[in-house]
Formats: sequence, C-alpha cells, structure tokens
Amino acid sequence: MHKYLPILDWGRTYDRQALSNDLIAAVIVTIMLIPQSLAYALLAGLPPEAGIYASIAPILLYAIFGTSRALAVGPVAVVSLLTASAVAQVAEQGTAGYAVAALTLAFLSGGFLVLLGVLRLGFLANFLSHPVIAGFITASGILIATSQLKHILGIGAGGHTLPEMLGAIFSHLDETNWITLLIGVTATAFLFWVRKGLKPALKRLGTPALLTDIAAKAGPVAAVVVTTLAVWAFDLGAHGVRIVGEVPQSLPPFTLPGLSPDLLGKLLVPAILISVIGFVESVSVAQTLAAKKRQRIDPDQELIGLGAANLGAAFTGGYPVTGGFARSVVNFDAGAETPAAGAFTAIGLAIAAVALTPLVYFLPNATLAATIIVAVLSLVDFSILKKTWGYAKSDFIAVAATILLTLGLGVEAGVASGVGLSVLLHLYKTSRPHVAEVGLVPGTQHFRNINRHKVLTDPSLVTLRVDESLYFVNARFLEDLIQKRVTEGCAIRNVVLMFSAVNDVDFSALESLEAINHRLRDMGIGLHLSEVKGPVMDRLKLSHLLSDLNGEVFLSQYDAWQKLAPEAGRKLSAV
Amino acid sequence: MHKYLPILDWGRTYDRQALSNDLIAAVIVTIMLIPQSLAYALLAGLPPEAGIYASIAPILLYAIFGTSRALAVGPVAVVSLLTASAVAQVAEQGTAGYAVAALTLAFLSGGFLVLLGVLRLGFLANFLSHPVIAGFITASGILIATSQLKHILGIGAGGHTLPEMLGAIFSHLDETNWITLLIGVTATAFLFWVRKGLKPALKRLGTPALLTDIAAKAGPVAAVVVTTLAVWAFDLGAHGVRIVGEVPQSLPPFTLPGLSPDLLGKLLVPAILISVIGFVESVSVAQTLAAKKRQRIDPDQELIGLGAANLGAAFTGGYPVTGGFARSVVNFDAGAETPAAGAFTAIGLAIAAVALTPLVYFLPNATLAATIIVAVLSLVDFSILKKTWGYAKSDFIAVAATILLTLGLGVEAGVASGVGLSVLLHLYKTSRPHVAEVGLVPGTQHFRNINRHKVLTDPSLVTLRVDESLYFVNARFLEDLIQKRVTEGCAIRNVVLMFSAVNDVDFSALESLEAINHRLRDMGIGLHLSEVKGPVMDRLKLSHLLSDLNGEVFLSQYDAWQKLAPEAGRKLSAV
Repeated sequence: MHKYLPILDWGRTYDRQALSNDLIAAVIVTIMLIPQSLAYALLAGLPPEAGIYASIAPILLYAIFGTSRALAVGPVAVVSLLTASAVAQVAEQGTAGYAVAALTLAFLSGGFLVLLGVLRLGFLANFLSHPVIAGFITASGILIATSQLKHILGIGAGGHTLPEMLGAIFSHLDETNWITLLIGVTATAFLFWVRKGLKPALKRLGTPALLTDIAAKAGPVAAVVVTTLAVWAFDLGAHGVRIVGEVPQSLPPFTLPGLSPDLLGKLLVPAILISVIGFVESVSVAQTLAAKKRQRIDPDQELIGLGAANLGAAFTGGYPVTGGFARSVVNFDAGAETPAAGAFTAIGLAIAAVALTPLVYFLPNATLAATIIVAVLSLVDFSILKKTWGYAKSDFIAVAATILLTLGLGVEAGVASGVGLSVLLHLYKTSRPHVAEVGLVPGTQHFRNINRHKVLTDPSLVTLRVDESLYFVNARFLEDLIQKRVTEGCAIRNVVLMFSAVNDVDFSALESLEAINHRLRDMGIGLHLSEVKGPVMDRLKLSHLLSDLNGEVFLSQYDAWQKLAPEAGRKLSAV
Repeated sequence: MHKYLPILDWGRTYDRQALSNDLIAAVIVTIMLIPQSLAYALLAGLPPEAGIYASIAPILLYAIFGTSRALAVGPVAVVSLLTASAVAQVAEQGTAGYAVAALTLAFLSGGFLVLLGVLRLGFLANFLSHPVIAGFITASGILIATSQLKHILGIGAGGHTLPEMLGAIFSHLDETNWITLLIGVTATAFLFWVRKGLKPALKRLGTPALLTDIAAKAGPVAAVVVTTLAVWAFDLGAHGVRIVGEVPQSLPPFTLPGLSPDLLGKLLVPAILISVIGFVESVSVAQTLAAKKRQRIDPDQELIGLGAANLGAAFTGGYPVTGGFARSVVNFDAGAETPAAGAFTAIGLAIAAVALTPLVYFLPNATLAATIIVAVLSLVDFSILKKTWGYAKSDFIAVAATILLTLGLGVEAGVASGVGLSVLLHLYKTSRPHVAEVGLVPGTQHFRNINRHKVLTDPSLVTLRVDESLYFVNARFLEDLIQKRVTEGCAIRNVVLMFSAVNDVDFSALESLEAINHRLRDMGIGLHLSEVKGPVMDRLKLSHLLSDLNGEVFLSQYDAWQKLAPEAGRKLSAV
C-alpha cells in the first residue's frame, strides 16, 4: 500500500516547518507558472487556459502517487511540441476536435505510463540513449523556437519540420505585422538580457543571490505586464496585434477524452513516444534533485505518478504533462520539502484561473512566443556533438542522425530513427567482438595478446580469448573466425576458447559452438574451453555441448596450456 | 582480383581427375533437379519451365563468383514460398505481370546481395538468430505442405497463412477430383516409403550404400515417370486431372525485370527478406560442406556469388534462387570437386529444357505436389521448441513466436517479429545485468559474491562487480541500483565498481557514471573503479570522468580494499 501511495510516507511526518517552506515555494512557482503555462498551451496549439488546467489536477495527482519530493509536473516545452505535432495529424487547430485529441493523447499517455508502472517495465525507457535524448532535445529546441517566429512576426504559418516551417515563414513574410514584430523583438531582447545581463549586473552590485534569482525569474512576468498594458493603452489589437483574448474564468472543467477506435489508433504511437520522452526527462530531473538530499525515487512508481497526472489532465481540460526541468529546479531552490508544495501551487493556479484570467485579455501572443524562445534556446546544446565525437564515433552517429532527422522529418521520425540506430550500432559493435589470440607470458601463468606482447605460443595450439558475450549477432562471426584461423595453419591440433569475458551464451551461440565442434572434429582438431564463468557453465550443462565436446573444459587457461602445448614446440612470438 | 573471382583459384589447378568427378556428380544432380525444379516453380506459382531456367544461369554465375566448391544454387522450397507470397501482393497468378514480378524480385534480391557483399555487410544476416531460423523453417514447411494439398485434392484454393489456406481448402472440399486425389495420395505414400522404407530395406539386403542412395534419390523420378504414363495411357487429363501441359522447348530466354518505381517499391522489403533468408540458408550449407574438406568459404564473397546468381535468374526467365541444402548435399556426396560440377549440371538442365520438356506434358501437378510435400516435411522439426525450452526461455519465446506468427500472419510478419523479438529479448537480458556485491575471501586476494560466499566486508565500503558491458540500455539500471544501495546504509563512505567483466562503456554509460559520481559526491561518498580493462581505460581517458572522479582508479580490487577498508571495520559476512 505504501509502495503505491508514497503520500502515506511523507504525510505522517508533515509539520509546521515543512508547511511554511512548502508555502513559500508554492508562491514563487505559481508566479513563474502563469505566463509559462499560457505560453506552452500556445505552443501546443491549444487555447491558453489549457496550459493552466494542465498544471492543476496533474500536480495534485502526482503529489499523491509520485515519489519525488521536489518534482513539479505540468506542461513542458518538448511535450507541448510533440502534442502539437501529434494532434495536427488528426484535427485542424482551433476546432473542438483538436482539444479533444489533446485530451485523448493525455489519456493514452497516462494509461500507457500506468501500465508500464504496474508491469514494472520502466526499463523500456532506457532504449532512449543519452545521445539520442540530447540530440532530440537540441533539435526540438530549434524546432520550437522556429515555430514561434510566426507569432513574433504576426503571420500565419504552419509546418512540423524545419524546412516546412522556414518555407511557410518565407512565403508569408510579406504579411508581417510591424507592431507585433516590435513587441516580439523587444520582449525577446529583454528576456535575453534578464537571463544573460541582469543577473551578472545584480551580482556585481552585491544583491543577495536569492533576490537576483527572483528578479531573473520575474522577467517573464514583467514582460507580460508591460506588453499587456501597452496593447491595452494603445489599442494595438485594432492594429492587427494578435492577443490572447477571452479566457474563461473557471476552475478546470470536467472533460472527456475521445474514445473512438480510429482516434485511439492514430494517437497511440505518438502517445507512447510522448510518455517515454516525458518519463525519461522527468526521471532524470527527479533523480538529480533526490540525490542532492540523499533521497531516492522509485522509477516504476514514477511511471504510476506521471500516469496518474496525465489521466488527470485528460479529464480536466489539459493535455500531456510531465515533470519539467525548469519548474522543478525553481521549486527545489525555493525550498519545497514535500509534494505538498505542488498541491499549494495547484491551489495558486486555480485561484489564477478563476480570478486573474481577465487580466491577460490584452496579452500579445508575441510576448508568450518570446518567453518560449528564450526558454527553449537554453535547451539547444550542440556540445553533445563534440563530446560524442571525442568519445565514441558510434554515439556521434546516433546524435547527428537524431538531430538531422528530427529537424528534417519531424519529432517522431527523429526519435524513432535515433532509437533504431542506437540499437543497430550497439548490435554492430557486439557483432564483431574483440577476439585476441593469446600466448603465455614467460615466467607467469598469465596469457596475453600475441600481437601486443612477447609471449610463448605453440604451433599446434590456438588460444582465442573472446571479449564479449556470445549471442546470435556474433555467433556466426566466431564460426567464420575460427574456420579462417584453422585453415591457415596446417600444424594446428587444438583450439582453446578462453571464456573469461563471456557473460552469456545464448542458443544461437550454443549451436554455433556445436557446429564449430563438429567442423573441427571433421578436421581432426580438438576444441577446448577454459575459464568458463559459473553462470555460463550452469547453462552449458543444460546442453549436449559439454558431453559432445571434442576436447576438455579447463578451469584455467594455464591448465589447458600445460596439457596441450608440448614443451618442445613452444616458442617466443615476435611482437 | 582473385578475391572477387574465386574461379581463378580453382580453375588453374583443374585436371582430368577433377573433371571426371565433376561430370559424374553433374549427371546425378541433373536427374534429381528436373522434377524438383518443376515442383518448386509450381510452388512459386510460376510456369514449370521457370524452375528449370532458374537453375541454369544462376548455377553458372555462382560457379564464377561463389567460394563454395560444392554448393548447388537454384530454386529452393522456402524461397519459392516467399516468392509466391511476395508476388501475390502485386499481381494475379497466371498473368504476365506475375512472372515479371518474380523476375523483379530476383533482380532486387540479386542487387541487394551484391551491394551487401561489396560493402562487406554480410554480418547483417546474423540478426536472424538460429532459433528464429529454425522456427521459420519449420513453420514454412507446414505452410508449404498445406499449400500443396490443393493440388493433391485437385481443387483451386489460395491463401498465404495457415488459417487462410485451411479455410480455402475446406470451402472447396466438395470440388475434390477423386482421380487426382488417388494419384496424389499414392505418389505421396510411395515417396514416403522410398525415404523411410526403401533405404532400410535395401540396407538389410546388403546393397552398397551408394546404390541405396541413388535408389532413394531416383524415387521422385520414378513417381514422375509412372504417373505421367498413367495419365497418358488412361487420358486422365480429360477426367479433370490437372497436368503440367505444354512447356516451351527452349533455352532460357532473355527477360527483363519490371523497373517501375511502384513495383520496385512494393517488392523491396520482400526482396530483402528473401535475400537474407536465402543467404543464411546457403551459407550454413556451404560452411558445413566446406568444413568436411577443411576448405573455407568467404561469407562476403558468397553474397556476391548469390547476388550474381539472382541477377542471372532475373534476366533468364527465372525467379529468386539460393544455395539449396538437398541439392548441395547430393552434389557433394556424388563427388563434386569444384564449381565446374555446377556448370555441367547447368548444361544438363539446358539439354533437358530443349529436349525433354515435351515428355512432361502429361505429368500431373499432384505428383509434383507430392514430391514437394515429402521434401518439405523433413524441414518440419519441432524439437527446437524442446531444445530451447531446456536451454534458455528467451530463445524459446523467440522460436514459439516465430512459428505461431509465421503460420498465423504469413512469412514476412513471422520473420520480422522473430528478428524484432530476439533483439528485444537480448537487450532485455543485458538491460538488467548481473551485479554482485563482493567481499574478500579471507586469506586470499580474491573477491566473491557476499550472498554466496563467506567473505570479509566493511560497512563503510560497497564493492559492486558488474557482469556486463555498460551501454545505454543498462546505464540507468546501474544508476538506480547504486542510488538504492547507498540510501540503504548510512555508514557507507566509499563505492567501488569492479570492471573486470565490462568490455565497453558507451557515451550513455559514461554520462551515467558521471551522474553517479556527482550524486555520490553530493552525499559525501567516494566513487572508485577497479580492474578496468585496457581498451575501456583508453576510452575513459578520452572523457572527463577520470579527472572529475570523486575517488581513485585501482589496478586491482585488492588494492582498493587495502586502501578503503580499515582493518578495524572488517567483518565476516553471513552467507
């Protein structure tokens, strides 16, 4: 029971001190979330209130089911982009079908996450390798920023890939609304300055760190207030500046996701993608924050927490949510001690939804676009290309392909190709394992690579050390290698396979070993094994390989050498 | 040059003795191939002569480019089935489009094989694990045998999955032609008897082994001759017995595959499947035969040989071919020494195509179906289920799924699911690697699992031995595991990761190690590595991990123990 309801753990020891810390954190996070929620709803192609609704019920549900003390759940940039891309495939933006499809996406995503959690299948998220995630986030940042250019320019333009978006923008460039552009560029420049210039300036003036931080976080709020007032004062809406307009003054409504098989079928794959990406992002944030306080999160329970949050979004007018990096860090830094901070944030947002929505009537979309652009450009980080290039070319290929395909073909194709490519590259690497022919280091019982060390060898004996588990992808490689090696030397009487680094032998590899055994027997050559690990030996004992083996299993390679390499034949290898 | 034209190797040393052996083998193989080629063409849904044409040019081309001395290339059962299944998706059987599609399939398959060969990508075939191949071949055998029942019954019935085929047969059962059924059942029973009864009987009579073998191989020829004569003598064609009919008396014609993008697009995936399955079957036959004479085949050059054979088939009225098991074994047993035996077989078949085709006019389809059924039922072998069940459940799942999905959804879905499932199961296994917490075996420098052995441990030190390469699929697993372990014990001051069985650390795992390092540092715990292999160390040196490490890298685990486990704290574990 406690396992599935972490609230029972922290709830019992909740005290006045925790309450006060949580309340302070909640106020700070609420102020930050109001413009952010509106902006992400815009990014997802939904009415602005959807962003606020998506932050209320999900936060409450995560507080009950989630295991992280500081994670803040709600709309985030990448998931909003994925939502826009998925929903656009089934409905026209601005229609009722569009909002329903977003609810359905949250519903499917929530159901999928809960299912994975109950089945303890969280490890599936590991198929997204770090380079693929990094590449995807960088490419998404570029796509998101580009998608907001139309709001800065005040034009209508669509597209879900970089070429599409740029093409649409260029073809509508003549429709640019200059007042909107002025607002958008000013707001963007201001927010950049707040981020890059204000903080250092305040620091130089000796302002306390907390105050500096609050000032930086309040930047978007200031931009919202000033541009809203400007639009209202000069009636810029009449001059073609697009504004948020009427937002219903209401608590989150009760909504129903669409359940037609056709809609569910079309949104299933995007929902899985959103779930996995959201989960991976959320878990890494939660894990990092938990470690700072020597706490622990349970990834399988996190699936249930995030699943519940998404189901909540589906029934309260929201759209897919996850644990966000920025909001969680603010929550943590502001001193949140328990998920109750999240619950108080939800109350703050609910009050905003009822009382403050008329105030954003004159808020220009360009300002929201500016906050998005400034936020997501911090996601764009090409250093991953350099880092992987220096470390491992296979990882570099995975990153580069993910970035290019996400930009060129869209988010789904990008991630799918990235995952597929990582798996293929891994299989490729293990398909040609490092196999060293070894000989005895004179005066020791150690065996080393004959190409790197001066070692004793015997022409009648070939010893191969296989540095990889044997399984179907590399089974035939070993067959070919041994066949090639034994046809090279006529004096060969015995082959020893040294299994010190073999952690597994699957059925294909077993059959390959049997085939090698038969072929070597046909050639009059013995096949021996040495240094087989316990678990591998247990498994091999289930087969006929050991009884049919045209040779022996030696505990150590040195035993094999003493028995199979006659003193007379031994000679020192040239390096 | 010699690499790409193996004929230059064996051609130079060709002598009278080899010529005589090759000629004898060619005669035996030719006699066996005539009914077999007709039967496989029937199975592929093509006119009978296509089977003979598909055996002529391909054999010659393989003789020039292939590396196996005994492999006999031509139509085989499984590839014929795959051809029928693929071509049926684009054209109606019996139309000109159907034959052109078969040519196109051979063309694409040939091109793909040559491409793989030139790029040395033969290892891709290894993605078909042994259990998947075994399951697929068994299921194909059942599908093929079932597909021939309509010819035995003399009815028209289609379908490409077992339920479809059985459904079609039952719904047409009332149209059964009883004379056809009599011929079919008699021929089937006779051929079974030849295979199972005649050989033992002859052996008991003391007949020489070679003669027994020839008698068994001549069985299909005898069935063909007798049933053909019966149809001719009693004019059974007029009673509704379907016969082969007119076969053009001609050398293989020059044909052109269809090259419309639409056709190529539709046949590309089936062509890749046919190529890979054909290649895998062919290579295992070639490798087995080569080993018997201590020869070697070059898998990448085999791709070029088989590719050339398929391109040849595409331009001479054939359809996809590969190295067949039955025909190759007969060729080998009959004493073929070089690919010249194949060339002589091609000449024999060319003579048959010109001179003997009128003789098969009255040959009933039911007899051909009987030869197919008897041949393919030897492919059906459910013992793989038992074997894998006893050895490794993951392999069992792959076999069972391949068999069920091949029978239920058809050949392409079956193989694709089998391959996908094998990869997933492998990744799943490595996603949760065996990680042992180890302690010192008293009086030695050895470290063993604390749960299996009485070993010395220290409460301030946790040593984990990871028995798997670290990569993206298991990177997060290790993060979680360590996080869990260190939050359990408050006295923990140091964590050592023992890397003796880690063969690789990819970029994701590197980032996980960095994250572990940072988190442990936040908790005031040191992270150390021990027994890191040379290649892994080389790679880690390319990163910042080692310089940022909140601890040391120890050459041996014993060094780590001596430094990190204070004498006073050591205590013996309970097992």
